[in-house]
Amino acid sequence: MTKKMSELLSKEEFEAKLRGMGDMYHIHHPFHIRMYKGECTKEEIQGWVANRFYYQTAIPIKDAAIMSNNPPLEDRRKWIDRITDHDSVGGGIEAWLELGEAVGLNKEDLISHKYVLPAVKFAVDAYINFAKQRPWKEAAMSSLTEMFAPQIHQQRLNTWPDNYPWIEAKGLRYFQKRLSEARRDVQHGLSITLEEFNTVELQNKAFEILQFKLDILWTMCDALYLAYELKRPPYFNIEGYENEQRKINCSE
Amino acid sequence: MTKKMSELLSKEEFEAKLRGMGDMYHIHHPFHIRMYKGECTKEEIQGWVANRFYYQTAIPIKDAAIMSNNPPLEDRRKWIDRITDHDSVGGGIEAWLELGEAVGLNKEDLISHKYVLPAVKFAVDAYINFAKQRPWKEAAMSSLTEMFAPQIHQQRLNTWPDNYPWIEAKGLRYFQKRLSEARRDVQHGLSITLEEFNTVELQNKAFEILQFKLDILWTMCDALYLAYELKRPPYFNIEGYENEQRKINCSE
Repeated sequence: MTKKMSELLSKEEFEAKLRGMGDMYHIHHPFHIRMYKGECTKEEIQGWVANRFYYQTAIPIKDAAIMSNNPPLEDRRKWIDRITDHDSVGGGIEAWLELGEAVGLNKEDLISHKYVLPAVKFAVDAYINFAKQRPWKEAAMSSLTEMFAPQIHQQRLNTWPDNYPWIEAKGLRYFQKRLSEARRDVQHGLSITLEEFNTVELQNKAFEILQFKLDILWTMCDALYLAYELKRPPYFNIEGYENEQRKINCSE
Repeated sequence: MTKKMSELLSKEEFEAKLRGMGDMYHIHHPFHIRMYKGECTKEEIQGWVANRFYYQTAIPIKDAAIMSNNPPLEDRRKWIDRITDHDSVGGGIEAWLELGEAVGLNKEDLISHKYVLPAVKFAVDAYINFAKQRPWKEAAMSSLTEMFAPQIHQQRLNTWPDNYPWIEAKGLRYFQKRLSEARRDVQHGLSITLEEFNTVELQNKAFEILQFKLDILWTMCDALYLAYELKRPPYFNIEGYENEQRKINCSE
């Protein structure tokens, strides 16, 4: 992982090093590489959408947790946009539900989280608990994986129509939406990080926090790989435990 | 998983149904089946011991969290034994460190948690956060996987000397210790559960909580399978990220 630094980096060097950690962004996970190449089955796409929905619902929750930990007024005025981006009518939550319908899932099954794998739940809940329990600046800078997000969203916009023509186009609205929202979020997140993480110890702490966030995203992909590609969801080998809840139903 | 019941079960039926969930106990995970049969490599045994140590250190912490949520005096008098079982001189923490040495790990590497996989950390932290955030009775009954633990500890005592003769015998002290401690713990945990979870809703809640705890243990095994059997620890395919921290060094 990223080695501990022993000297204070300039803001430019600090930003460069944070951006360099994008080598570990889940765009490089074999599951996403297969998705990009068009190799995912319908079940794998549905499994990803259903499990990702748990992460999506966690975003405004963790942003509210951050706001509850006393950021200054000026930061709260900006941070609240993240909540409304997701929660408002026509916002990110609704857009992901549209994606769910576009890949053939029932809205109620998404909302009930019936297909969410335990490993995914634990990883996402770790993010929420971090936002609740840590000082607001630490949780704020953990959002910086958004530096890498526009690339993966653009990838999907570019390749899904040809690779997965069975997915309705309306489902791509979330990715389109995030292209500009993520860039705006990063401006605020990065300015907090470069300004506030201004000692050797704090810069190293920032690398640890970003690593933690990258680990969450990578772990989610590992869980999907295990359950949908290797067909080893929890208790897969236990007689009589058919994991009805974990079987994605491909509705045509 | 366990279907929701619609009628109140007698205490005998309730206990039988809880015990029946042992079909999903991690003794049945393919990783533990291989371990039982003597098929694990030294690296897999070391990886398991190092990652399980994170769970071991969480036990007295989650028990303190339970005690901080206002159990009655009589329950606190008993529950504190769980903390001293692990934390005292010669207790469970020290016994697991002895197991670490017995399988060839460095004590400092165990204590620093350098080999702990993210998915394991997230699963164990979910248990700690549950104990912090839920009413004490819910967290207390989540300890009931101890109903199934003596069998897996006895298995290890029976089979490790022949299957893994390179492991020093002193390393087995933890398993021996837990045979009696777990049985005593279950008496208290079960009496709380049968007494307090006394409506249909509460009995169904108890099944959900035990499922959550079984999911934590199963998820840990999945992470070990991925990292040590499939050799796919986090970022395994990323050029230049050798996961030095995740490579178990087999010291002879």
